[in-house]
Amino acid sequence: MEKRGGEAVEGVTVSNKQVILREYVSGFPREDDMEVVLRKEIKLEVPRGSSAVLVKNLYLSCDPYMRLLMSPTLPNSIFSSYAPCSPITGYGVAKVVDSGNPEFKVGDLVWGTTGWEEYSLVTDPQGLFKIEHTDVPLSYYTGILGTPGMTAYFGFYEVCSPKKGECVFVSAASGAVGQLVGQFAKLEGCYVVGSAGSKEKVDLLRSKFGFDDAFNYKEERNLDAALKRYFPQGIDIYFENVGGKMLDAVLLNMRTRGRIAVCGMVSQYNLDPPEGVTNLMNIVYGRVRIEGFAVFDYFDQYSKFLDFVVPHIREGKIVYIEDIAEGLENGPSALVGLFSGRNVGKQVVVVARE
Amino acid sequence: MEKRGGEAVEGVTVSNKQVILREYVSGFPREDDMEVVLRKEIKLEVPRGSSAVLVKNLYLSCDPYMRLLMSPTLPNSIFSSYAPCSPITGYGVAKVVDSGNPEFKVGDLVWGTTGWEEYSLVTDPQGLFKIEHTDVPLSYYTGILGTPGMTAYFGFYEVCSPKKGECVFVSAASGAVGQLVGQFAKLEGCYVVGSAGSKEKVDLLRSKFGFDDAFNYKEERNLDAALKRYFPQGIDIYFENVGGKMLDAVLLNMRTRGRIAVCGMVSQYNLDPPEGVTNLMNIVYGRVRIEGFAVFDYFDQYSKFLDFVVPHIREGKIVYIEDIAEGLENGPSALVGLFSGRNVGKQVVVVARE
Repeated sequence: MEKRGGEAVEGVTVSNKQVILREYVSGFPREDDMEVVLRKEIKLEVPRGSSAVLVKNLYLSCDPYMRLLMSPTLPNSIFSSYAPCSPITGYGVAKVVDSGNPEFKVGDLVWGTTGWEEYSLVTDPQGLFKIEHTDVPLSYYTGILGTPGMTAYFGFYEVCSPKKGECVFVSAASGAVGQLVGQFAKLEGCYVVGSAGSKEKVDLLRSKFGFDDAFNYKEERNLDAALKRYFPQGIDIYFENVGGKMLDAVLLNMRTRGRIAVCGMVSQYNLDPPEGVTNLMNIVYGRVRIEGFAVFDYFDQYSKFLDFVVPHIREGKIVYIEDIAEGLENGPSALVGLFSGRNVGKQVVVVARE
Repeated sequence: MEKRGGEAVEGVTVSNKQVILREYVSGFPREDDMEVVLRKEIKLEVPRGSSAVLVKNLYLSCDPYMRLLMSPTLPNSIFSSYAPCSPITGYGVAKVVDSGNPEFKVGDLVWGTTGWEEYSLVTDPQGLFKIEHTDVPLSYYTGILGTPGMTAYFGFYEVCSPKKGECVFVSAASGAVGQLVGQFAKLEGCYVVGSAGSKEKVDLLRSKFGFDDAFNYKEERNLDAALKRYFPQGIDIYFENVGGKMLDAVLLNMRTRGRIAVCGMVSQYNLDPPEGVTNLMNIVYGRVRIEGFAVFDYFDQYSKFLDFVVPHIREGKIVYIEDIAEGLENGPSALVGLFSGRNVGKQVVVVARE
């Protein structure tokens, strides 16, 4: 094992800290469902003749969908479950240490699917995007410039087709995706209200992200009444991040030809069975469209997205809040914290800063 | 009171049998929630200076949505509740006896919103369509050539956007709408399976309407397993007429980019609260669209619909089955029968045949 001045050097063998899933999870995930281990060494080079890429991981993204992969079976096969005793995977930012692929060269910064470990051999580098803009924080590529950003952008613009003056409701509004949907909605001249789970988050929505209003859903006994208070005329667009009771209340408040873009249902991932939604008949009364979408369907439009969002970041017209956990050791706790809403803003884990 | 040879004569005063709602209904409607009364006489002429139309009702349509109007409150205001002690209303076929409206003249045959009574004064004749084609059974204008026909046509073609070879599932498939959706799907080269609630209906689906297959949902313990049997590759299009448990099972079987057109949820109208739907997260996995629609949004395209469907009827390429109840006295029983699935095909009430 050898390192030179902290710099990963191609060809040497180093230790490789990993976060592994101990076994499949039922109910809410706990920190000790995962374990930080130092079992294996890794040689910092790609196997001869392979088109893989070997990367040093810098920032890892904590995303709610990762809970789904901790179950042994998934209802559809767009993802595969994690393998117990193996490192979990997710989106991250990394630096190329060795490359068997002409698209990537040593020293390139990339983001995409990687492992929760110090170094990863990415055997399918098609899942990696090269990072071109480095005048923004690199961690942004786990958030505003990565899948949460694209999720917010394509979910809002493509699935919801917003029009100026429409009334937009966003749940989990201070999260990785929600904070952006709200800001996009304001850019389009919409009225936008968000819900979140603490006073601090609600304050952020109003003061930092420019939502017209916000409320703490944990303090509302009757979500239907809360929505009627903020949307006396009803909701045109609901950006759905949580599911369950909130969706049921929203259905009672949708306006004619309203649209619900379903990004995820984080409140339901730890429940078996999930909460039943009873007000679906309202989509007939209101001719409402509910549409599920998946961000990777839009990956081929990544540059279009960047062209839109990067100037807004540079000009300070869009802001982004991250919740940074330092070190792979703190990864499991950060990931689990998503499900109690402990994070404020996008939850990132820093593995290394270069 | 005077009648000449059974012919309604403009200007005379006649008795007017009516079906009234006794009081608001909770749970399943019963025949005695309604009453057939002969309380009032009606003068067969429109008030001087009004633009109303006075019609003699011939055929009345029994539709599941009518149950919703028997509740005191409706979640959205696209309809108004019935008024207790007044005749219920619905779609029907009628003959104009007197008219203050230049669009309609005495003797015209019309269909549209009318009362459950022998004669109705239609104060807003904009809800009436003039009947042009009389070489088909007049009762068809309560079904295949009326709102159920348009519901099937626009719901299937506009909301579902079918493609040749796609797999289509229709619930309540032998009903007023379902039997047509299945036939339209076959015209488009789709594979189509229907569910219904009796052996007789299932046989009809296979033999008369040309569905590729059909099953009796009442004999299936596990709807998910039943759907997997008929759709091993999954469902591209679900034409939703029933809601509840069936929808929940369908959600487990939707293919990527599947579409669910929600016409109604007849299994839920008598339940308070309705059954909870728990599998909505599947619309994210499959990027599925669920869309409610209302037929009256398509009323301005009625002639386009007729141009499509009338030739198919004349050529015998589309068939239609009706369940005829004779006489207004049998109206309440016919209407209530919808909710136990007693009707086979479109339920019609004949008030008079000319």
